[in-house]
Amino acid sequence: MVGAGQLARMTCQAAITLGIGFRVLAATPGDSAAQVCADTRIGDHRSLPDLLALARGCDAVTFDHEHVPGAQLRALEAASVPIRPGGAALRHAQDKLVMRERLGGLGVRCPRFAPVTGAADVTDFAERHGWPVVLKAIRGGYDGKGVWVCADAAQAAEVLAHGIPLLAEEYVPFTAELAALVARSPYGQGAAYPVVQTVQQDGICREVLAPAPGLPADLAEEAQSLALRLAAELDVTGLLAVELFLTPGGLLVNELAMRPHNCGHWTIEGARTSQFEQHLRAVLDMPLGATEPAAPQVVMANVLGGDGGDLYARLHHVLAADPPLRVHLYGKPSRPGRKIGHVTALGTNLAELRDRAMTAADYLRWGSAGPAADAGSRAGAGSVAGAGPSAGNSAGNSTGRGAT
Amino acid sequence: MVGAGQLARMTCQAAITLGIGFRVLAATPGDSAAQVCADTRIGDHRSLPDLLALARGCDAVTFDHEHVPGAQLRALEAASVPIRPGGAALRHAQDKLVMRERLGGLGVRCPRFAPVTGAADVTDFAERHGWPVVLKAIRGGYDGKGVWVCADAAQAAEVLAHGIPLLAEEYVPFTAELAALVARSPYGQGAAYPVVQTVQQDGICREVLAPAPGLPADLAEEAQSLALRLAAELDVTGLLAVELFLTPGGLLVNELAMRPHNCGHWTIEGARTSQFEQHLRAVLDMPLGATEPAAPQVVMANVLGGDGGDLYARLHHVLAADPPLRVHLYGKPSRPGRKIGHVTALGTNLAELRDRAMTAADYLRWGSAGPAADAGSRAGAGSVAGAGPSAGNSAGNSTGRGAT
Repeated sequence: MVGAGQLARMTCQAAITLGIGFRVLAATPGDSAAQVCADTRIGDHRSLPDLLALARGCDAVTFDHEHVPGAQLRALEAASVPIRPGGAALRHAQDKLVMRERLGGLGVRCPRFAPVTGAADVTDFAERHGWPVVLKAIRGGYDGKGVWVCADAAQAAEVLAHGIPLLAEEYVPFTAELAALVARSPYGQGAAYPVVQTVQQDGICREVLAPAPGLPADLAEEAQSLALRLAAELDVTGLLAVELFLTPGGLLVNELAMRPHNCGHWTIEGARTSQFEQHLRAVLDMPLGATEPAAPQVVMANVLGGDGGDLYARLHHVLAADPPLRVHLYGKPSRPGRKIGHVTALGTNLAELRDRAMTAADYLRWGSAGPAADAGSRAGAGSVAGAGPSAGNSAGNSTGRGAT
Repeated sequence: MVGAGQLARMTCQAAITLGIGFRVLAATPGDSAAQVCADTRIGDHRSLPDLLALARGCDAVTFDHEHVPGAQLRALEAASVPIRPGGAALRHAQDKLVMRERLGGLGVRCPRFAPVTGAADVTDFAERHGWPVVLKAIRGGYDGKGVWVCADAAQAAEVLAHGIPLLAEEYVPFTAELAALVARSPYGQGAAYPVVQTVQQDGICREVLAPAPGLPADLAEEAQSLALRLAAELDVTGLLAVELFLTPGGLLVNELAMRPHNCGHWTIEGARTSQFEQHLRAVLDMPLGATEPAAPQVVMANVLGGDGGDLYARLHHVLAADPPLRVHLYGKPSRPGRKIGHVTALGTNLAELRDRAMTAADYLRWGSAGPAADAGSRAGAGSVAGAGPSAGNSAGNSTGRGAT
C-alpha cells in the first residue's frame, strides 16, 4: 500500500487476520501505519524507483491516498505492476474536473460545475447559478482543504489568488450528506455496504450514522446501485466510496474515493466484513465478504486533535465510562482538527449511540472541560436524514474531496 | 509480550487498535507474531538478558506461553520489571502439582490426583481410583502433549520411562468440557466472558461453542464466579482461562491458563471486547471492556495443519462459499495437527454454524476431498453440553495443559 496513514494502519490489521503479507511505503518511520507494519519501506510516493521497489514481490499495489502522480501510475502499469485501482480509474478520484465530466457523460446527477480560470468565469457561473459559489481545487484537496464556499466575487478573488486550477460548483442546499461504499474485484464481483449518513463540520467528517437514519429504502437502493454502476463503468478495483448529497430533488454525487474511507470505519465492528479486509480481498481478486451490519444501528465519531493533552490518560476515563464502546487510536501526534482516532458505538437507539460516541470523541479531544466552541459542534451534529436543513448543514458544500 | 505465536500475533492487532506500543520476543523472525509485529526482538525466553532487554521501556511485560522459567520470573521481579501476571500467580499455570494443591487448599473441586515417581505409585493410585489413570507432565505440556490416558500398568510404565515429573489424575467421565474466561486488572477489576463449551479431539481443541449450548444458567454463573474467585485468590493480572469438566456431579477444574486462550478466539468478532484487547487492558491496568456477546450463538473452529496443500488457493474457495464467515490465518507452516488458523461463524442456529465452521476448517486443512480420517473427526465433534457422553468424549482427559 502506497501511503502509511491510518487507512494503511487499519488495512495492515486486516492483512494480519487473513495471513496476507502487507507492505507500506511511508514517508517517515513515524507515519501511522509505519509504526505498526512489520514491512515498512521509507520512500516518496512521487518517486518511480521507490514505487517500483515497493511493488517488487507483491501481488497487488494499492493506495492509502490519491496523491501518486498520474505519470507514475502509467509508468507502473507500463512495467506490468498490478496497481489496483488502475491509473485510468484512479484519475477520477484524483481530478475533480475529469470526474465531473465523466459522470456527466454517464448521465449521473452532480452539482452543476464549470472549470474557472479567472474572476470573469466565476462571475459568469454565479450569474447562471447564483451565489454562493463553491470553488474547489481540481487536484489535491482533502478534509475540507481545497474547498471554499464563496459568498461573493471578493471572496472568490481571494481563492483565485492562490493560482491553482479550480472548478466552480453550484452550492447545493442538501438535506443530508450520504455515502455509498462498495467494493469491486478484477473478476467483476461487487458488494455494497448499507448507505450511511455523514455529518460534517468545517469540511471534516465528525460522525457516520450506519445505516443512514430515516433514509427511504428506494433511495438507499438507488445510492447502492449507482455506486456499483460507477465502480463497473470506471473499472474500479478495490473500494469505491461515493459521497452524495441528499436533496429534495434526489441524489447528487459530490465526491469519489477509491480506497478505504472514513465513511466505512464503522464496518470494523459494525459489519460482518470490515472495509479494510474487503479492500484487500478486492485488490487481490479474492471473493468479497458479507456486508451485513452486525447491529441494528452503528455510530462512528472521529476523534480530532484538540488541546494536545494526555491522550492515554483520557483513554482510561473513556474506557471506564463506556465499557462497550470501541476506541481506535492512530498513533498520530495531536494537531488541532486532525483525525487522530475514532470511536464506534453499536446498538439500537440512535440518539443514545450518538451521545455516547460524541461524548467519548470530545473527551479524547479536550479532556473533561471542553472548550465552548465544542458545544457548538455538538449542537451542529444534530441533523439526520430527512430532518431538513439545520445548523449542521450550514457548512454547506465545504466537504473536501477524498476525506480520509 | 514474551513469545511470538498466534496469541501474540492477535494481541498485536489489538494493540494497534488502542494505539499502544507492542513489542514481542520471538525465537525466530518467522514466528507467527514476528511476521507482523513492527517491534520484534529475536531472543530466548529462557535468557534473563533477553527478557530484560525486551522489558526496557515497557509499561508491562506479559506472556504468550507459560515457558519462562520461574527463576527468570523472580529475577525480573527483583529488577522491578512489571510482569503481568506475576511469577507467583503464573506458577499455577506452569506447574500442575502446585496448581492442584493450591486449588485443593481453596476447596475447589478438581479430579483426584497424586504425584507419582514410579510404577508402584501409579498402581497404588489405580487401586484407589480405578483404571484408566491419566498421567500428566507436571510442567511443559500443551495441546494434548504431556497427557497420557493409561488403560493399565503396562501403558503407565511406558510413560514413566520418559523420566519426567508426573502427576496421576483420575479419569473423569465428563458430559462436556467447558471454559470460563475472565480478566482481572492490578486495580482488582474483574470481567467474565460467557462460558463456552470446547470440543477436543486427540487432546486438541477443534471447536468452541459460545455460549455453551444447553448449559443451565446456575452452572454458567458458578463457572464464572469460580474463575473470578480464582483470579483474585491467585492474584492473576490479565486473562485467566479455567478449563472445566462438566460432570453429572458438577464442575471440576481441569486446567488453568493465564493469557489469551484458544477458548476465547471467538471473542474477536463474537464479543464486544476481544480477549486480546481485554488482556492488554488488564495488564496495563486500564478499565476492562464489555464482554457481552455480539451474536446469539458463535462457533469457532480451529484450522489444523493437514496435507500441506496451497492454503491461499483454499482460502479463495472458503471465502467464496461462505461470505459471512470470518477466517484467521496465522502465517504458520502447515505441519499436521498444528493450529494454523481459525474460523468463526456468528448467528443463531448452532447446528448450521457448526457445520459451516467445520466445513471451512476441514477444507482449509485437506482441500476438496478430505481424508477418511476426517469424516471421523466430524462425527466426533457432535456432542454438546447436556447431550451425554458420545464419540467426542472418547478422548477422555487427554486435554493437554495450556492449549494455545
